Amino acid sequence: MDIIYGIDLLGTLVFAISGVLAAIEKKFDLVGSFILGFVTAVGGGTLRDVLIGVTPVSWMQDLNYFFVILAALPICYLGRSKIARLRKSFFLFDTIGIALFTVLGLQKTLGIGLSPVIGILMGVVSAVFGGIIRDVLSNEVPLIFRREIYAAACFVGALLYYVSGLFSPWEEFNLIFSMTVVIIIRYLSVKKKWTLNVKPLS
Amino acid sequence: MDIIYGIDLLGTLVFAISGVLAAIEKKFDLVGSFILGFVTAVGGGTLRDVLIGVTPVSWMQDLNYFFVILAALPICYLGRSKIARLRKSFFLFDTIGIALFTVLGLQKTLGIGLSPVIGILMGVVSAVFGGIIRDVLSNEVPLIFRREIYAAACFVGALLYYVSGLFSPWEEFNLIFSMTVVIIIRYLSVKKKWTLNVKPLS
Amino acid sequence: MDIIYGIDLLGTLVFAISGVLAAIEKKFDLVGSFILGFVTAVGGGTLRDVLIGVTPVSWMQDLNYFFVILAALPICYLGRSKIARLRKSFFLFDTIGIALFTVLGLQKTLGIGLSPVIGILMGVVSAVFGGIIRDVLSNEVPLIFRREIYAAACFVGALLYYVSGLFSPWEEFNLIFSMTVVIIIRYLSVKKKWTLNVKPLS
Repeated sequence: MDIIYGIDLLGTLVFAISGVLAAIEKKFDLVGSFILGFVTAVGGGTLRDVLIGVTPVSWMQDLNYFFVILAALPICYLGRSKIARLRKSFFLFDTIGIALFTVLGLQKTLGIGLSPVIGILMGVVSAVFGGIIRDVLSNEVPLIFRREIYAAACFVGALLYYVSGLFSPWEEFNLIFSMTVVIIIRYLSVKKKWTLNVKPLS
Repeated sequence: MDIIYGIDLLGTLVFAISGVLAAIEKKFDLVGSFILGFVTAVGGGTLRDVLIGVTPVSWMQDLNYFFVILAALPICYLGRSKIARLRKSFFLFDTIGIALFTVLGLQKTLGIGLSPVIGILMGVVSAVFGGIIRDVLSNEVPLIFRREIYAAACFVGALLYYVSGLFSPWEEFNLIFSMTVVIIIRYLSVKKKWTLNVKPLS
Repeated sequence: MDIIYGIDLLGTLVFAISGVLAAIEKKFDLVGSFILGFVTAVGGGTLRDVLIGVTPVSWMQDLNYFFVILAALPICYLGRSKIARLRKSFFLFDTIGIALFTVLGLQKTLGIGLSPVIGILMGVVSAVFGGIIRDVLSNEVPLIFRREIYAAACFVGALLYYVSGLFSPWEEFNLIFSMTVVIIIRYLSVKKKWTLNVKPLS
């Protein structure tokens, strides 16, 4: 499906931009910015591929991912002020990106015969570990360990996609349905400042 | 052997609890706590599996590991004060856990035909890298790089298990013998505050 | 080619020493020093092997790498003051090391049928990720994200090696030519304080 491929590349670009921007903030040089953009964009999927044993990892098979990530460098270095004004679009694309990455990660894991529980876990890993690796390489505590609901939205999306697949044969509907739920949860959690910060007893 | 499987799951639980407790201390949210518990519990074995090329990694094949790790969340959030009082039991189970993880990691590595030196290394990796990954994700210097004797105890245990296997056909004896030595070294090193802090010359 | 094997081991030793020295500075114990030396020396090649799917990873097949890394411990703990005086030799060996690691990583990646772009990337990964993992485990921002030209020199070397291979059948010439260019770029960038620190617009 061409539109899925397009969203996949767009999500990769947005993730790469988030990595390059973090690198610029930390005053990394061009190489550091490229590396940080790269790991943010493909880190989650790469970890999933390595854990489930699908190697060479997927971005090695299609250079478009590489070129999209490379494009994040001039975009960030030349257009940083404009990006700031596009914050809302970025939030949208980032959220569509994690929703799609989650579903694609789940599909891939089920495709090699692993159980649905592992598939859902690997869907979430695909979506969130790029950001975790970005933060570890920047010497920061991973943002998603503290932030508003993020991985949890992916988890719900993955679960819904799997469950709806049991009942509905309309693949496209299931995809759009579960991705929409992820986007709504993300939107509401940021809007309403929902968190999963639970105080332990005593 | 069913008892080994039981100890393996118990060790996994204790490791997961140590990860969740570290996450609570850092004020991570529920998702962060789950992720930190997960990587602490299975990180070492996962790294070993990836390095020796046994994928999908082992916890994907048996969901009991997943459920045991999940159980660490309510245990820590509801019973944190009780856990503090169980410190001694935890030390015991943690130590039994690393001893067993070491031997199982060594066995698995030898089982795919790698040399004993690599087997011993991978035994130690299985036991200690979960904790290292926990500390890296929490933005801390890994504890075991500075603490009392820990990895070294695993190393001795792995070596003894391998060597005793050359002379003795009693698999169970070799297992219990080498695990006991690990536990004794750990106990003494904490009791006597042994370290491996060596001052470099000049 | 025996001389290449020798340079490979020498480069491994120099990398391991850089890891152990970093560990001593951080007051790690012997185990921490060994682990940090190990990951610095083989981390880049290991990551490459895992990503391209060549497992068990390469240092598991030849124990000489293990013994060379082990040798870094007495060298650093007994001869630290002498090492400081050998700074220039170390710079030379480190630079020869990264140049060779780059080319070997490129060759290996091409050898399993991946594209030249991925080959060049994996060449650079082989050379620089050992140092990145060292810095992450020491809880530091990776040095090469900020330092003088380092990864970029590897990139140029990998590119030249690949391009010269298209035109010249003299494998040895291509190797020496591209490694020499890496060494010259590194030397000049340190001497002239070249960086890739680019200010983003606005």
